[in-house]
Amino acid sequence: VRRKSLKGTDCAVALALEHVGDWWNILILRDALQGYSRFDDFHQSLEISPTMLTRKLNALVDSGLLEKRQYLARPPRFEYVLTPLGKDFGPVLVALFAWGKRNFQSIDRGIVLVDSETNEFAEPIVSDRKSGEIIRSPRFSFKAAKGSSAATKRRLSRSR
Amino acid sequence: VRRKSLKGTDCAVALALEHVGDWWNILILRDALQGYSRFDDFHQSLEISPTMLTRKLNALVDSGLLEKRQYLARPPRFEYVLTPLGKDFGPVLVALFAWGKRNFQSIDRGIVLVDSETNEFAEPIVSDRKSGEIIRSPRFSFKAAKGSSAATKRRLSRSR
Repeated sequence: VRRKSLKGTDCAVALALEHVGDWWNILILRDALQGYSRFDDFHQSLEISPTMLTRKLNALVDSGLLEKRQYLARPPRFEYVLTPLGKDFGPVLVALFAWGKRNFQSIDRGIVLVDSETNEFAEPIVSDRKSGEIIRSPRFSFKAAKGSSAATKRRLSRSR
Repeated sequence: VRRKSLKGTDCAVALALEHVGDWWNILILRDALQGYSRFDDFHQSLEISPTMLTRKLNALVDSGLLEKRQYLARPPRFEYVLTPLGKDFGPVLVALFAWGKRNFQSIDRGIVLVDSETNEFAEPIVSDRKSGEIIRSPRFSFKAAKGSSAATKRRLSRSR
């Protein structure tokens, strides 16, 4: 998941993508967040080759999003469990789910997100914890931090 | 960006990834959401080869996230502008940014998200528009929709 061109980046989005940027990785995290942990379950869900799945699971372990644990001694069997970092990715997946749902799928298909207290469909939005306001411009904006790199400062100043 | 193994999926996350699943695509969208529209700006920001950048921009046009517009007749020059679908991806990027920031970068580095009314750093969370509650279990949960496929129903029933 590491590509040389991002070495030294100080953009949090790029740093995040270095950990989960891959398409399959995100589907594996989706399954893990829904409670999957065993190789066979991921394999059945994703329909990718065992070799590829092994590589992706190991990459997520290396990135610190999954932890490999032995759950059976004989024969040796392992499961892949979300770390706190992996669990913390949950809101990103919810936002991605919501975008997919709003744009590519009607509410009566696939999977829906339900509020068990009201039995209504949830409508996920991204808001600011302190003010409760939806994150959007012009109220919220990205700015270079004090210690940001020259490249980042230049990038922000070139944006319109 | 299309891979055959997701043909027929009815998972909104997978449908979403078919449109933006690629790592570079997301960095392009990041730049576009910060106001970039011209090839040279993307090129300078991303430091990928022109061939690759052209391919990625065209893929995002095909997927409906960017629109290619001529802004100069002689010589012919084009810019890439976010469509409503592309703009709607903004909250996903904010959630990804927040995850990267929480886990891989201190607040004084890179880019920060600022609330201009309070001058404080924003803390993006994913919440439910109706109830205002943070999306997390056990209150919120994913369930199979009425019209979901047999595969999706099976997948959800296998999750723990």
